[in-house]
Amino acid sequence: MDISTSNMIPLHQTGSRKRLDHQQESICIFGTGDFGRSLGMRLLKSGYPVVFGSRNPQKSALLPSGSQVFTHAEALKKAKIIFLAIHRENYDFLSALSSLLDGKVLVDVSNNLRMNQYPESNAQYLSQLVPKAIVVKGFNTVSAWALQSGSLDANKQVFVCGDDHNSKQQVMDVARSLGLTPLDQGSLLAAQEVENYPLLLFPMWRLPFIITASLTVFFFLYCVVIKVIHPYVKKNTNNSYLLMHSIPNTIFPIVSLLLLGLVYLPGVIAAFLQLYRGTKYKRFPDWLDKWMLCRKQLGLVAFAYGFLHVLYSLIIPLRYSSYWRRARYVATLVKSNSTSELKMVWTWRSDALYASGILGFSVFLLLAITSLPSVSNTMNWREFRFVQSKLGHVTLLLCTLHTALLGWNKFLFLSRYKWGLPPGYILSMVIPCIVLVLKLILITPCIDRMVTRIRQGWERKGKDSDSLNI
Amino acid sequence: MDISTSNMIPLHQTGSRKRLDHQQESICIFGTGDFGRSLGMRLLKSGYPVVFGSRNPQKSALLPSGSQVFTHAEALKKAKIIFLAIHRENYDFLSALSSLLDGKVLVDVSNNLRMNQYPESNAQYLSQLVPKAIVVKGFNTVSAWALQSGSLDANKQVFVCGDDHNSKQQVMDVARSLGLTPLDQGSLLAAQEVENYPLLLFPMWRLPFIITASLTVFFFLYCVVIKVIHPYVKKNTNNSYLLMHSIPNTIFPIVSLLLLGLVYLPGVIAAFLQLYRGTKYKRFPDWLDKWMLCRKQLGLVAFAYGFLHVLYSLIIPLRYSSYWRRARYVATLVKSNSTSELKMVWTWRSDALYASGILGFSVFLLLAITSLPSVSNTMNWREFRFVQSKLGHVTLLLCTLHTALLGWNKFLFLSRYKWGLPPGYILSMVIPCIVLVLKLILITPCIDRMVTRIRQGWERKGKDSDSLNI
Amino acid sequence: MDISTSNMIPLHQTGSRKRLDHQQESICIFGTGDFGRSLGMRLLKSGYPVVFGSRNPQKSALLPSGSQVFTHAEALKKAKIIFLAIHRENYDFLSALSSLLDGKVLVDVSNNLRMNQYPESNAQYLSQLVPKAIVVKGFNTVSAWALQSGSLDANKQVFVCGDDHNSKQQVMDVARSLGLTPLDQGSLLAAQEVENYPLLLFPMWRLPFIITASLTVFFFLYCVVIKVIHPYVKKNTNNSYLLMHSIPNTIFPIVSLLLLGLVYLPGVIAAFLQLYRGTKYKRFPDWLDKWMLCRKQLGLVAFAYGFLHVLYSLIIPLRYSSYWRRARYVATLVKSNSTSELKMVWTWRSDALYASGILGFSVFLLLAITSLPSVSNTMNWREFRFVQSKLGHVTLLLCTLHTALLGWNKFLFLSRYKWGLPPGYILSMVIPCIVLVLKLILITPCIDRMVTRIRQGWERKGKDSDSLNI
Repeated sequence: MDISTSNMIPLHQTGSRKRLDHQQESICIFGTGDFGRSLGMRLLKSGYPVVFGSRNPQKSALLPSGSQVFTHAEALKKAKIIFLAIHRENYDFLSALSSLLDGKVLVDVSNNLRMNQYPESNAQYLSQLVPKAIVVKGFNTVSAWALQSGSLDANKQVFVCGDDHNSKQQVMDVARSLGLTPLDQGSLLAAQEVENYPLLLFPMWRLPFIITASLTVFFFLYCVVIKVIHPYVKKNTNNSYLLMHSIPNTIFPIVSLLLLGLVYLPGVIAAFLQLYRGTKYKRFPDWLDKWMLCRKQLGLVAFAYGFLHVLYSLIIPLRYSSYWRRARYVATLVKSNSTSELKMVWTWRSDALYASGILGFSVFLLLAITSLPSVSNTMNWREFRFVQSKLGHVTLLLCTLHTALLGWNKFLFLSRYKWGLPPGYILSMVIPCIVLVLKLILITPCIDRMVTRIRQGWERKGKDSDSLNI
Repeated sequence: MDISTSNMIPLHQTGSRKRLDHQQESICIFGTGDFGRSLGMRLLKSGYPVVFGSRNPQKSALLPSGSQVFTHAEALKKAKIIFLAIHRENYDFLSALSSLLDGKVLVDVSNNLRMNQYPESNAQYLSQLVPKAIVVKGFNTVSAWALQSGSLDANKQVFVCGDDHNSKQQVMDVARSLGLTPLDQGSLLAAQEVENYPLLLFPMWRLPFIITASLTVFFFLYCVVIKVIHPYVKKNTNNSYLLMHSIPNTIFPIVSLLLLGLVYLPGVIAAFLQLYRGTKYKRFPDWLDKWMLCRKQLGLVAFAYGFLHVLYSLIIPLRYSSYWRRARYVATLVKSNSTSELKMVWTWRSDALYASGILGFSVFLLLAITSLPSVSNTMNWREFRFVQSKLGHVTLLLCTLHTALLGWNKFLFLSRYKWGLPPGYILSMVIPCIVLVLKLILITPCIDRMVTRIRQGWERKGKDSDSLNI
Repeated sequence: MDISTSNMIPLHQTGSRKRLDHQQESICIFGTGDFGRSLGMRLLKSGYPVVFGSRNPQKSALLPSGSQVFTHAEALKKAKIIFLAIHRENYDFLSALSSLLDGKVLVDVSNNLRMNQYPESNAQYLSQLVPKAIVVKGFNTVSAWALQSGSLDANKQVFVCGDDHNSKQQVMDVARSLGLTPLDQGSLLAAQEVENYPLLLFPMWRLPFIITASLTVFFFLYCVVIKVIHPYVKKNTNNSYLLMHSIPNTIFPIVSLLLLGLVYLPGVIAAFLQLYRGTKYKRFPDWLDKWMLCRKQLGLVAFAYGFLHVLYSLIIPLRYSSYWRRARYVATLVKSNSTSELKMVWTWRSDALYASGILGFSVFLLLAITSLPSVSNTMNWREFRFVQSKLGHVTLLLCTLHTALLGWNKFLFLSRYKWGLPPGYILSMVIPCIVLVLKLILITPCIDRMVTRIRQGWERKGKDSDSLNI
């Protein structure tokens, strides 16, 4: 039991003027659970006097030292801002306090267990329950743990919404003085969205994840057919050990290159659409918009697969089977007493293969690093576009070249088309090659000039000059 | 000598109303040293008129152009906020200015050379020296260099504390308009902490560092005994060259896996403790709290060791001794005219070993990236927990599997227990296996449901329903 | 056509007091182009009523739902803040509205196509055109796309400048409530700079880029002469295949080490300069200042080159030529029936070479990570300096050691000096060795004490004690 009536802020100075300035407004918290207590602790630390409202003020344990605890009605009288750290199911008792709540700012910090659990948001329900109070939704995205530890690890963003501008500002000021970053989300209508936010799980990653998973499964089956089932059926060879290394190391680069192509395809489609329409002031079709919004995520997955490909390739010399194969090759060489020559074409090809791969991966890594929020924040729009567009297409070019050098002339030999299926590397190059050809067309001077003019607001049949070039 | 009386802000516009709005409050700086001058420069750049107070106004050199310099008493009269950029040892002269300082905001920006150098903080000392002034502590965490270069490299956080709320707000507004991020630290009592802050050196890393260093030293000695001393004593073989590569590459993965186990052990201990207690509203023992607070650092050290292990392993084929050993193996093979078969079990095991290692490392890398402040800030609490808990346990599982595949059946052979000591890899797997088994128990549906209920605020003998689920 | 007269903010609550508080000030946007519409959408989302001013209010398409559109004159009357999202070329019509604009805040968001396209900034031109309006420059660094998507990817910084403090504050408040980070840039004189900002392309990277490009070209030619032309002229050997792998993998580490040396050279020069002058209160020569400001960029380029060196080295065992060379070596070994011994010195040297390389690269990676803005922001000044200075010199030491171990005793043999030119690795070690020797002198206790005293503000002939130690 820790009921202290002393104010945490020391009055060790004597000037009377100061004592007045000093008298910061108390903040009231209803609910002495985990979140309420953590919030109280943090508020006290930032210099706010804190009063708790509880059903059993005598029984409330573990309250932060320096705070006071009263009944709900008493606590209400001491503050203008009341944080409501209780479940929606327990809101009913508030209607009895209706008259006391007149004009007070009620901050609804509650979360639900599921998305859209109730027809209206908790904050809107509260607003109907106590119409005289001014309801502000907020703080629900902050965890009790983050408040306690004062840590900067978790999200510091506090979404705030409400119908009354001034009250919202007051709540945002409180958030700011706790070291959090309040973000105004508009009217109380947005409360549903704000309440759903903590329940989201990577919504922007859903589409890229589905695309990646589908491609991975497809190419896994494709490789199994070509590399395991075909030799087994035709030559009765058991190649199942390829499942562990060779097949993953075929899937990763193929899917990575395809995804990279998918990152840059919508951009060229959009440019051609604008060229065809002769204006940029027309909405893109919905699918194109969605596609363009998940390019960053697609690119990061492509990079992750590329990274796995690099690691899988680098450990090749460590594998037992590669060790064994090399030994056998040399033994054969010695026994046959043949003298193999260093073939110049092979040397060039092998070195060009690795050089294009390394450079492609490195530029790709650069792209990935610049997509880190703190890095992209230091760049202006022109720099960001330079990196993501120019360097992006260079990456695509290098990676496509890398794949072509690996494939070399395999596509010429019919024996490579098992059951008529082309080798995987050919499939992976289709989209990147289309993107590169279209991009090549777009950067020819005359086309480029036209696209630039359109993007600066020019329209083929200009009617409205009221526009700004961005 | 650069004493200019002209105001930096140009009055090239004529509206009289504007000229009034325009009249921003001057800011006074006492002290013309490095910090004072840099602060003045930055204030001028943000549009504040700046006056310097100096003992020798005629002799003050290098002051930023656009500022004015006066005697202390004169300068005081021109501003409400005074930055005190002088050493604590030189504060005495302020008591003579006491009457002029009445009601002024005195910002103490001083730092000390050692932690807790004086019994009370500089700001509290100042407040006793000039009781009529309102003392605000702040800006001491910003360096002169950062102010000059306007760079975003160094820390932009400005900790501010003081007893008077309004004055604190004014100082925080100044910080904000300089492009800095003020953080309210409460009353002047916090000044000691604020003054100590710039003298801290990775306080959160101390415990992880000690744990890592101890484990590293222990396993170094352990490996030296097993791999160098034992063969020397028993077979008179000089294996000292192992010190440079093999032994580090044994220590790194062992310590890395152990640390990763230590990251996830406190979480399962805490869950079992909550299950046993039947409530989450009881403080954890102190050691558990401390342990949980340094999990991120432990994890990052584990990742760094894992990274070193990866690099050490990848360069193995480049080593002279591995080159030599392979050549000798093949030569023996040829001479003995034996035909070795590709052993399927070995192929599978070797490829599974590398696959688990690569995947484990990659997921670990993902964890490390999401712990970057700017990345974790874009995630909500659910996403953060998904990554750090779900993916974290996957990492632990993959890395433990990787170790088990490496050890294989070595633990069966007595010859592997030099002087009765088990191979290092067995020791490294103890904690991870305990964590994985306990976690497996925790995710069985019935236990999981109970833990979830407890974490949502339910108590075995519920007495207080006033709680919010987080 | 989407002209709606309904206010977006729902008035579903009945308290009359609330309805008043609620009445947030409208914001007017001139220009219905891409930027104007995106800005309107975002403002509506944050709860501001938005009115558009257009030449043809009847014809304005695609306006965000919830906004209203009027003629310029009518729109003006409804708001105090007017965003001007039109081209500078179309500003003329504003002079006709002069009387209506009296006292209004005109936010100029325009950009130009080239740096310093006009003699005066667009904002200053506007201010002369409509002298009665209060012009604030800002929002030009934000893209229409970022406003639409509400994404955090692009830069959230909004540079704001203007002569009137209050108006500037109002515009900054609008920016803040849109979730952007306003930065006060001072008076309208800064508008030229603010307008140029979006046209900059990595200005801080220019000098490092030139240095790196020059060094790369120089060492490329140097290596070609030594490794390709010399053998061709002397022995008629065609080594041109080295261009693809060996020569890049020689250039990358050499330039990386040189750049790393150049990162730490200005620091030691500055320390010796301060020692010589006996004070830190003297400006460094201009070239030294410029050099010191681009150290971070130099270091990051050095790291990128080091990274390429690591990748190029790790794929060596995968190269066809290395595969062929090993096979030939073993075949020779077998045929000559010789038994090569494991040479201990070679083993130690090879392992030390790789260990120093791995450790050097890893510490370098740590430096690179801590230079990420979000990571360096979590460190205080002492921690940042510890990492960048202490760990930086350790990196330099390890990388120099790595190079020396690679070179070994090659420098002793005259045959290595083709046409009298020393091997590249010797050239690369000159600057790092100078830095390390000078640093060694600086950290001797007596010199170190003197430098520390100077940096704490002490001067050899102290005249002004008014200074603060930072």
